[in-house]
Amino acid sequence: MKLIRFGNVGQERPGIEDTNGAWLDCSSFGSDWNEGFLGNSGLEKLADWLQENKANLPKIDKSTRLASPIARPSKIVCVGLNYSLHAKESGMPIPEAPILFMKASSSYCGPFDPIIIPKNSVKTDWEVELAVVIGKKATYVEEADAHKHIAGYVLHNDVSERDFQLNHGGQWVKGKSADNFAPLGPYLVTPDELKNPENLRLWLKLNGKMMQDSNTSDLIFKIPFLISYISQYMTLLPGDVISTGTPSGVGLGLNPPQYLKEGDVVELGIEGLGIAKQEVVAYR
Amino acid sequence: MKLIRFGNVGQERPGIEDTNGAWLDCSSFGSDWNEGFLGNSGLEKLADWLQENKANLPKIDKSTRLASPIARPSKIVCVGLNYSLHAKESGMPIPEAPILFMKASSSYCGPFDPIIIPKNSVKTDWEVELAVVIGKKATYVEEADAHKHIAGYVLHNDVSERDFQLNHGGQWVKGKSADNFAPLGPYLVTPDELKNPENLRLWLKLNGKMMQDSNTSDLIFKIPFLISYISQYMTLLPGDVISTGTPSGVGLGLNPPQYLKEGDVVELGIEGLGIAKQEVVAYR
Repeated sequence: MKLIRFGNVGQERPGIEDTNGAWLDCSSFGSDWNEGFLGNSGLEKLADWLQENKANLPKIDKSTRLASPIARPSKIVCVGLNYSLHAKESGMPIPEAPILFMKASSSYCGPFDPIIIPKNSVKTDWEVELAVVIGKKATYVEEADAHKHIAGYVLHNDVSERDFQLNHGGQWVKGKSADNFAPLGPYLVTPDELKNPENLRLWLKLNGKMMQDSNTSDLIFKIPFLISYISQYMTLLPGDVISTGTPSGVGLGLNPPQYLKEGDVVELGIEGLGIAKQEVVAYR
Repeated sequence: MKLIRFGNVGQERPGIEDTNGAWLDCSSFGSDWNEGFLGNSGLEKLADWLQENKANLPKIDKSTRLASPIARPSKIVCVGLNYSLHAKESGMPIPEAPILFMKASSSYCGPFDPIIIPKNSVKTDWEVELAVVIGKKATYVEEADAHKHIAGYVLHNDVSERDFQLNHGGQWVKGKSADNFAPLGPYLVTPDELKNPENLRLWLKLNGKMMQDSNTSDLIFKIPFLISYISQYMTLLPGDVISTGTPSGVGLGLNPPQYLKEGDVVELGIEGLGIAKQEVVAYR
């Protein structure tokens, strides 16, 4: 299944993209795509419900705003420097263990919402990433069992303010958490429809020019390991997002570095997970 | 008002502690003490409702479990090294700007719940802290307006695993996010009942011995500044917790360092915010 959410900010409703690419309104299913839904076998129940109800679901006009395909997660855990060339371009060593940091969940937004350059920002940057959505509570999970805790996969732009992240004292969270710094979507794809999440091309274009172009096969720490590893430090809840890291080609790594400015257009995609597009605006 | 929540894990209900110290069940008010409640003028509505209904509310037996006085927040933002002597004992410089880090919100628990030593932990430590609960969405708030965004204050033990925090690669969040690493409570005190949050004694005892004993007047960065500062980097939502930092006397700062072990008892308090007590257990 491909889950979507649609509608204006604060009025999002759940839906699916069907195999023909049509968007169907699943409001009558009776639950948003959220922690409660995922934690109560919602995906299985939805699949059953669709068998009976799919033919009668209202179609959604494609001009409708797409929101994040999952409701606001309890946390967004990100993995830093998880592609070798990106570690190199960032001037940092290849990590011996996954570097974890958080984005404020308030930063999440839809895949076509604008990227908002925060006040006082001088270095707002892009990062295409494969994100994993947790489907089942995970505490001290073995790597071999990690797949049981995955609800699906989603495209993520881990927007980052490098000056806030690296030069404002302390921890990276300062540069990762502004509003609209976590566009998610267009859709969440369940594992049955994404056979090999660790062999997917991912890319990002800035104003039509390819900036990042890599493959998830280059991930240093793989998804089952990451779920197991993170679950040693914290409990992952249904709906939580793990963003697996970005490949090389971010603005910070260019010579000279290049950052986002008002009017720029960022387009990004992952094989099987669709395409997102964000216009860059200044905070007003 | 003093807000409490009570009942078994997953079945918490809202209540208050009245001026006589009795616990009253506010389930009939119709809302948990959560983001929606705080964000919709819930405190004002509750105060009005109590005028009419207080006399008829069921009393709660004092043997009942107290939970965190607010439902799971969207985020727990912590301030690092915000007391000079604690920076010194940690072997770190006094910060020029607030150091911010996150605790996973899944780490929150009640004030008398056990501290659970995580698997593979060797350095689980204590940190008494004054926490502020946000009452109104805050983005780019001026320091002079910060008080308008405060719902109340709460006692917090920012339990920390120093090896995970400092020696496992990268960011502090790894050592701050285990289950039960954020006991909150006993109650949330609204600002009208806590006249000077920046002149309160705060203390922590380990097995009856005073380990931390300081005053919030020693905070390097004060509460209005912190709210304004954090709101430059992320949007604070109603119910969000800002933990303002711990004074000296943590286990890491002792010579030799001393950490929690099974059977230890931690007791902590802040003037006006009550007392919490946690027994230390190993993860099983």
